[in-house]
Amino acid sequence: MNQINRVAIVGGTHGNEFTGAYLIQKFAQFPDLITRPSFETVALLANPNAFAVGRRYVEKDLNRCFLKQDLQDPTLSSYEELQAKSIQNRLTSTVDKADFILDLHSTTANMGLTIILVNSHPLNLKLAAYLSQINPLVRVYRCSFKSVEENPFVNSLSELGFAIEVGPIAQGILKATLFQQTQELVYAILDYLERFNQGEIPSTKETLILYDHLSVVDYPKKQDGTIFGMIHPEFQDKDYQALNPRDPIFLTFDDKTIVYEGTSTVWPIFINEAAYYEKGIAMCLTQRQQINI
Amino acid sequence: MNQINRVAIVGGTHGNEFTGAYLIQKFAQFPDLITRPSFETVALLANPNAFAVGRRYVEKDLNRCFLKQDLQDPTLSSYEELQAKSIQNRLTSTVDKADFILDLHSTTANMGLTIILVNSHPLNLKLAAYLSQINPLVRVYRCSFKSVEENPFVNSLSELGFAIEVGPIAQGILKATLFQQTQELVYAILDYLERFNQGEIPSTKETLILYDHLSVVDYPKKQDGTIFGMIHPEFQDKDYQALNPRDPIFLTFDDKTIVYEGTSTVWPIFINEAAYYEKGIAMCLTQRQQINI
Repeated sequence: MNQINRVAIVGGTHGNEFTGAYLIQKFAQFPDLITRPSFETVALLANPNAFAVGRRYVEKDLNRCFLKQDLQDPTLSSYEELQAKSIQNRLTSTVDKADFILDLHSTTANMGLTIILVNSHPLNLKLAAYLSQINPLVRVYRCSFKSVEENPFVNSLSELGFAIEVGPIAQGILKATLFQQTQELVYAILDYLERFNQGEIPSTKETLILYDHLSVVDYPKKQDGTIFGMIHPEFQDKDYQALNPRDPIFLTFDDKTIVYEGTSTVWPIFINEAAYYEKGIAMCLTQRQQINI
Repeated sequence: MNQINRVAIVGGTHGNEFTGAYLIQKFAQFPDLITRPSFETVALLANPNAFAVGRRYVEKDLNRCFLKQDLQDPTLSSYEELQAKSIQNRLTSTVDKADFILDLHSTTANMGLTIILVNSHPLNLKLAAYLSQINPLVRVYRCSFKSVEENPFVNSLSELGFAIEVGPIAQGILKATLFQQTQELVYAILDYLERFNQGEIPSTKETLILYDHLSVVDYPKKQDGTIFGMIHPEFQDKDYQALNPRDPIFLTFDDKTIVYEGTSTVWPIFINEAAYYEKGIAMCLTQRQQINI
């Protein structure tokens, strides 16, 4: 395996996810914090215009703009589509290609410190296992794509690396505790990569709990598409907990409970994520499994 | 005192404060819930365009558009300025004047169920005392104006009534527990007004704890106006708790603690409210006092 020469830490891909955006500004101001002897680290504020107005995006969700075909399409010219092409140029050009990309996100869901894998590269898996071992708040969610061409995320630009999703936190604010936890996680990742370069990969247990993406669940909706219910009070904040058939998931505005109609146990995440209301999505379902690595 | 003939419940004045906006939609769909024998109740979604895009406002904060001079200025024609004039027409015209206006807001700060008084009308004070007596989550914040002409809020349209500020909740989501608590508070207010009309005002204790507005405190800022710190982890969620001189309030991005430099105890609220970041405001300070009513 080749050495890692350059790491990119990306934040503010969504402009109202302040934890990552302000961490990037901090790292840009104090670069020593992310400097390691064997590689260069760059801190990149991905969507400065959206951050300036405190919104997820200006015209289009930047973290859906990295499909290969879209990056190659000269007719796509919204602010975020141009920004995606610019980020691609910056992080994949031969002279200063990023070997490892870390993309910092936050969520209103109770997801602790979640690592979002978009592939199953052995180094990503080992690093995820290491991080979940040193910090019990770390969970590992895997959202696989049939091919890298179908992956619209920033992390499609590099095989190595992943997104971090921290929460619960409202959009548009900082919470010091979560800010510090995210910062410590970034440092742990950089330290791990440094030891990897030195040929001293920390030993980890040989198993990893993975939450594999299954499907999304919509809110109950009226004919006109508007929602008519909300996350059930007993289900709120139950991310990564087993959801069994007939467990309550929604409470309608006329006070009726809607239960989970599936036939087997699933593990929901992104429960009540603010950004998903515009699509009417209430949660993602995952399958929990233990894998050997 | 005259009878109350018409009550207006206003929500979605800020389009990303979903608790109020969805309660209004629920009340519009099930009007029996807010109907009482002795008065009419109308449910008004105040900023439908901002709600449709899930933002606080489209062009201008609607809850700063109700200064009398602005409502009378024909040159003001942003979406929210026009909306304010329309709401004024609807709620103050002779035929269907609202005698009592309740404006439903939410906050990312840990403010429980806060009543925001903009005047000291005896009925408002008595109702606030009653509500704080039946529910310990209810607090009463008073934000006085020298004259009604200087009050830019929806509630400037009527002497009777107040805003309700519920939290903590992220912008752009519903939390069933807070939704239900807010709903119960609305019902308690309507029931109280019904008994007032019947000449049967519920007896309340004769004292009320009021948190009177003193000032706002900004985040620590750099020369260019950008913030360089966040709410101190020990101070987060401490709304309505005594803040004493030398208590920590901020943690800067280079990990320095900033303490409260005031000379006497104050009671902060709106700590870490998302909507105030655009103004750089970190909290409001209040003075706690017990008054006889």
